[in-house]
Amino acid sequence: MSRHIYKFGGSSVGDIRRMRRCASRVAAAVQAGQQVAVVVSAMGDTTDELIDLSIQAATTPDRRELDALMATGEMVSAPLFAMCLNELGVRSCSCTGAQAGIETDSRYGRAKIKAIDGTALEGMLADGIVPVVAGFQGGAEAGSVATLGRGGSDTTAVALGAALRVAEHGGCCEIFTDVDGVFTADPRVVPDAVRLPTISYGEMLELASLGAGVMHARAVVFGERHGVPIHVRHSQHPGTGTMIVKESPEMEDNVVVGCALKTDLGRVTLRQLPATTGVQAALFDRLASGAVVVDDIIQAEFGNAISIAFTVEHGDLGAVKALAAETIAAWGQGELSIDVGLAKVSVVGVGMRSHAGVASRMFRALADVGVRIHNITTSEIKISCIIDRTEAERALRTVHDAFGLSELGATRPAPTAGTMVPSQRDTPA
Amino acid sequence: MSRHIYKFGGSSVGDIRRMRRCASRVAAAVQAGQQVAVVVSAMGDTTDELIDLSIQAATTPDRRELDALMATGEMVSAPLFAMCLNELGVRSCSCTGAQAGIETDSRYGRAKIKAIDGTALEGMLADGIVPVVAGFQGGAEAGSVATLGRGGSDTTAVALGAALRVAEHGGCCEIFTDVDGVFTADPRVVPDAVRLPTISYGEMLELASLGAGVMHARAVVFGERHGVPIHVRHSQHPGTGTMIVKESPEMEDNVVVGCALKTDLGRVTLRQLPATTGVQAALFDRLASGAVVVDDIIQAEFGNAISIAFTVEHGDLGAVKALAAETIAAWGQGELSIDVGLAKVSVVGVGMRSHAGVASRMFRALADVGVRIHNITTSEIKISCIIDRTEAERALRTVHDAFGLSELGATRPAPTAGTMVPSQRDTPA
Repeated sequence: MSRHIYKFGGSSVGDIRRMRRCASRVAAAVQAGQQVAVVVSAMGDTTDELIDLSIQAATTPDRRELDALMATGEMVSAPLFAMCLNELGVRSCSCTGAQAGIETDSRYGRAKIKAIDGTALEGMLADGIVPVVAGFQGGAEAGSVATLGRGGSDTTAVALGAALRVAEHGGCCEIFTDVDGVFTADPRVVPDAVRLPTISYGEMLELASLGAGVMHARAVVFGERHGVPIHVRHSQHPGTGTMIVKESPEMEDNVVVGCALKTDLGRVTLRQLPATTGVQAALFDRLASGAVVVDDIIQAEFGNAISIAFTVEHGDLGAVKALAAETIAAWGQGELSIDVGLAKVSVVGVGMRSHAGVASRMFRALADVGVRIHNITTSEIKISCIIDRTEAERALRTVHDAFGLSELGATRPAPTAGTMVPSQRDTPA
Repeated sequence: MSRHIYKFGGSSVGDIRRMRRCASRVAAAVQAGQQVAVVVSAMGDTTDELIDLSIQAATTPDRRELDALMATGEMVSAPLFAMCLNELGVRSCSCTGAQAGIETDSRYGRAKIKAIDGTALEGMLADGIVPVVAGFQGGAEAGSVATLGRGGSDTTAVALGAALRVAEHGGCCEIFTDVDGVFTADPRVVPDAVRLPTISYGEMLELASLGAGVMHARAVVFGERHGVPIHVRHSQHPGTGTMIVKESPEMEDNVVVGCALKTDLGRVTLRQLPATTGVQAALFDRLASGAVVVDDIIQAEFGNAISIAFTVEHGDLGAVKALAAETIAAWGQGELSIDVGLAKVSVVGVGMRSHAGVASRMFRALADVGVRIHNITTSEIKISCIIDRTEAERALRTVHDAFGLSELGATRPAPTAGTMVPSQRDTPA
């Protein structure tokens, strides 16, 4: 009997009609002999509505209170989903994150899972009961509720996949969402983007971090660390979707598997900083204390002085400006400049480790269409260029073309028997 | 330092603007040196919206799941209220019922409070923190949530008043609602009804059971049993309201303190039942198993047969008809008849124990205006007449007049120093 986690996102359970359709998918899997545990997000816009209420209530809501509030969204959808399953004759029982045994630390709003006690869920599965777990949350100290941050339901699902050892039971973590899988680029921007039948955790992680909204990056890390196969599919008309799996040798045949765009970035440049040990730590400690998420960092050295540039989202620029100015004042040395209206185009692929000339092919393609590159950063399997926001979509299409990604669906290896999971055949289309 | 429970109902916290007004009332009390614990209901129509979702999800939702769902309404308003308090500079912390130490049995949908462990709340109060407790709920077995039934937030408030010994701390349980207090009759029906400065638990209980919607009857019972003074006031423009207190000798000076109306009643009459022991038990056991709430019961004996009549709300008539017919079939004897379109007008007052002629004054007044009385039931402090629904409002006004209740506000004893609580003066009007 294979065992699976079925995770349904907010738009998949946006109203009861859609929720029932998701529930009938679970019912079909159960009737086909699968053990299933369900994870649900909050219905539709619930999370935004709760945030709106909190903003009306307080200028800076207490984080613990905010988490107690935000967690209710999933606490509404879990019992409703369980009712839908019961209505279909499938015995089901809803759980909050804490009831499901998910223990988190107390960093409210961005809590990390410390441990999962799977006893309650194992007991339900053994009794033929489908647990429906409220995603995005866990129990913190003293019975408080803490949330895992936006997109945290993906993390809940993958973490439960690890705790319930779905891979050992021949199953996987099924992420049902509102897209057909992972594409070579955002199809809204690049019309000839194609779906990837498989992608490695590493590639998915880079794409997720670069703004491809299919999956929460943290969930991908969790999946890789604990060896949980993740299957991303459309909730309303699931085809074969995309399997996120361990890297296999033939994956390196494709130099690049996807490209992504992040827009509305600002660049912060600090020049003439003292070239002493600890300068970087002092700067980024201060930014972290202000909860600023820093994107790429570039450092260059000129004689006795260094220059550090980094990108942040536009929304963080106000906070960054103040914090960076404080840092310069503390050193008594340095110049601050800020550029806005930037974007980042990136290409990702495990194959670039073994293929030369990937960077030059990207730079050449952008140069040929007149896109100016402001900054370049690379990782082992990624190349990113900071460009003007106004040229962002054109640059993405150019790069997609340059690597022939619209042909990739055909050449990328389909999931093999080892990575393909029974649910893809068991579940009705 | 006096200690109080402040309970705010659903319309009082219907939106954030009103919630902030309630919070500023709490803030003023805290700044005046009171210790306050808050209990909140779900915002406005939330409970109805959740019920509507559950009806869409399942024809007969599982009770445990329904409770998990319903409890979220209060779980939303509690952190929002705490945020409002924090925003006003008052340190506050929200709790679910379970976090507040409220332990219930597992009769989902109508759970009873088994015990309250006040340790967490006592700790907060000692630290100068205002706990904001989600009303209407508690923790049942295995971490599940159970609800106390409609109006259960009143019960939460009074139960916490007992657990936190507010009376010993010179305080009371303040029920902030959308009426100015307890009136001699519903002012929408009887324009010259007046507010009662005080009422005894017994009188309030009779009025609550008779359809005066000011307070949940169960909460009144709890308050009487544990000696918690209850103060009912309007949340948006609180005047002095009504204190619900232990009966005092001078209260008997007023024969009748209020009258009430219950409409849309049906009467079920069973005739020619065998006059054997256990007939009544068999009948009403069966009705209870169908969760039918039976109002007044009248039995008369004729030779070897007995006749039992009782009233129920119109909504329960379908179920009653089936259950009563089953009972007759089981006995092989009896006739069933059902009348609809009835109402019940009642007068209540502890003074009727020591005053003669109360019943005759009521019957005479109704007769003088041509209202026909179908049934009569009495308790020690109450007389009820079943009449036609079409004459209900006229009957209520007649009875209110007959006992001169519009003069009662002046003669009814005002709260004495012993029952009057400081909050009535501390809190800004």
